[in-house]
Amino acid sequence: MKAELEPGERLDDLQTKGYRIIQKPGEFCFGMDAVLLADYAKVKEGGRVLDLCCGTGIVPILMAARNAGGHYVGLEIQEESARMARRSVALNGLEEQIQIVTGDCKEASRLFGSASFSVVTANPPYMVEDGGKKNQNEALTIARHEVECTLDDLLRESARVLKRGGRFYMVHRPSRLPEILSKMSAAGLEPKKARLVYPCSDKEANLVLLMGVRGGKPQLRVEAPLIVYNKDGSYTDELLHIYGIET
Amino acid sequence: MKAELEPGERLDDLQTKGYRIIQKPGEFCFGMDAVLLADYAKVKEGGRVLDLCCGTGIVPILMAARNAGGHYVGLEIQEESARMARRSVALNGLEEQIQIVTGDCKEASRLFGSASFSVVTANPPYMVEDGGKKNQNEALTIARHEVECTLDDLLRESARVLKRGGRFYMVHRPSRLPEILSKMSAAGLEPKKARLVYPCSDKEANLVLLMGVRGGKPQLRVEAPLIVYNKDGSYTDELLHIYGIET
Repeated sequence: MKAELEPGERLDDLQTKGYRIIQKPGEFCFGMDAVLLADYAKVKEGGRVLDLCCGTGIVPILMAARNAGGHYVGLEIQEESARMARRSVALNGLEEQIQIVTGDCKEASRLFGSASFSVVTANPPYMVEDGGKKNQNEALTIARHEVECTLDDLLRESARVLKRGGRFYMVHRPSRLPEILSKMSAAGLEPKKARLVYPCSDKEANLVLLMGVRGGKPQLRVEAPLIVYNKDGSYTDELLHIYGIET
Repeated sequence: MKAELEPGERLDDLQTKGYRIIQKPGEFCFGMDAVLLADYAKVKEGGRVLDLCCGTGIVPILMAARNAGGHYVGLEIQEESARMARRSVALNGLEEQIQIVTGDCKEASRLFGSASFSVVTANPPYMVEDGGKKNQNEALTIARHEVECTLDDLLRESARVLKRGGRFYMVHRPSRLPEILSKMSAAGLEPKKARLVYPCSDKEANLVLLMGVRGGKPQLRVEAPLIVYNKDGSYTDELLHIYGIET
């Protein structure tokens, strides 16, 4: 299928099944965090996945490439971003598997109903609303700061839309781990797995992948460290594998 | 100084400044966790350190070897263990720097007063009182299970005896991280640093080193991973360095 790009947009190869994605440099581009999340999250055959704050649709598109039996809904509040996601879904012929909905993450349970998903994924804004430097660009600000959706909103709605035993996957900043873990527990999304992402084996972690279970019992497994770069600056084999590049 | 050992006791070399420690195999032996904690915790010249649940005194003895300007108090509820700690302190000529007190961790603030220490260290029992298999041996049970001192007791008393800005260092199990981080925050010992300890670079973490600041602001740094063994089963250079073995 031929991509119809709008001004400022770019078409990128996802290195997986020939899938491609429409992005807009400077406003809507996915990062490594989205790729790591899509690899970390698992869905069983026939499972229903809701991706909150889906942006350009990168997480459901990559997950669909790896978990062909799943059904995906992406929820995104910014119409321009949601439209790009819809066009990328069509471009990859994934209309049967992925639905992109324009809407507010705070309204997810009202939009989709309670206990309606087996998996929720989220790559939410990392920065609290009143903290950090805001971007001049409104689209970027909404994507990075908790303007439209706070961590509390996200966890509350995720707990509501998940079935009992359903899994919640999120990527976030380690700096907020105490708050995140405690709020996940309080929301009924008990943290069961965490994987720290370190840029290099001698550097501080800059991302954390989390898995919580709706109604689970407290017992966290901190999985093996995920290291991004070797000492010589090249990607580690695991990173290349996650990106779909054969070594 | 010649060590006077009692039946069942053993004298071990600490590989640091010629220091030695009296242990009793099967009842009171320190593990790698204590050595890692003693290396992780820092104290400034003239600082006062309280080690809760001090056991055989390993943490203050190792800290004194590395931070000569500190003053240390070890609090231990089991008299037999405290007596061994006192004899090890004397054996190393550290009576001026380290005082071992027999007493209950739950009473620490009553025993020593509020805001009386700049640093608290703790290598507490890891297992909740009703969880896990108990040891037949009562001394081992008290050392490993929260029989005499729960995490809540420990955090409450640590917060009370620490000065504002004082540092709380603890080693614990990653499986309890959500509870630990949330209770540290609630107790006013804001988690500022965490370091995961992985037996090997491709294995789950089995220990976590934590640093909290009395009255600190929320912002956690997850430090570089601490890996214990190389792939060939030998200790990593960092572990050897922590153990005082030159490479």
